[in-house]
Amino acid sequence: MSAYFFESNQKNRREIFPGVTISTKSCEKMMLSHAVLAPNAVVPRHSHPHEQVGVILQGEAQFRIGTEVKTLEVGDMYVIPGDVEHEVTAGNEGVVALDIFHPVREEYVG
Amino acid sequence: MSAYFFESNQKNRREIFPGVTISTKSCEKMMLSHAVLAPNAVVPRHSHPHEQVGVILQGEAQFRIGTEVKTLEVGDMYVIPGDVEHEVTAGNEGVVALDIFHPVREEYVG
Repeated sequence: MSAYFFESNQKNRREIFPGVTISTKSCEKMMLSHAVLAPNAVVPRHSHPHEQVGVILQGEAQFRIGTEVKTLEVGDMYVIPGDVEHEVTAGNEGVVALDIFHPVREEYVG
Repeated sequence: MSAYFFESNQKNRREIFPGVTISTKSCEKMMLSHAVLAPNAVVPRHSHPHEQVGVILQGEAQFRIGTEVKTLEVGDMYVIPGDVEHEVTAGNEGVVALDIFHPVREEYVG
């Protein structure tokens, strides 16, 4: 297994909400989380002290971050400061996104 | 301008190597850098203490990280620990990638 290259294979995916699976890879200070949301799946409103950034890789989704709401498409990026509430609702075709967290979210390691 | 959503517009792009332009957005502990490499453009071998992760958004490129070499395509991800030497050579169609650095690379702010 490569130390540096990350393939989002299906083997180590876990479902964190209904229709929402992630595959993660940690480095020292950041964690990558490759997230797949089924059509219309929802990551319910939540917050965490970790800073989060990300990009849409496939499909589209409505993001609510703080009081801002926007529908994001492939290539669109987002920044979620620590402790800012956010939620995501996948579009009719689902969505694939890459999230990066700092620091590592220990509950998602493995 | 949104606090949370980032569009990689052309207005604030800068050329950091021949044929290699970036557009950056910082948050507190991480920096996003949207990188566009012209066909066959090269980010020469270098290292930095910052941890770096990223994903290919368009095209393909050959990455050399430490002693590993791999051609990455759309959706492929990579992790570059601090102080590990790396270089990137874009394919014949060029490549677009999103890099995330921790901590913020102050020389690329703005």
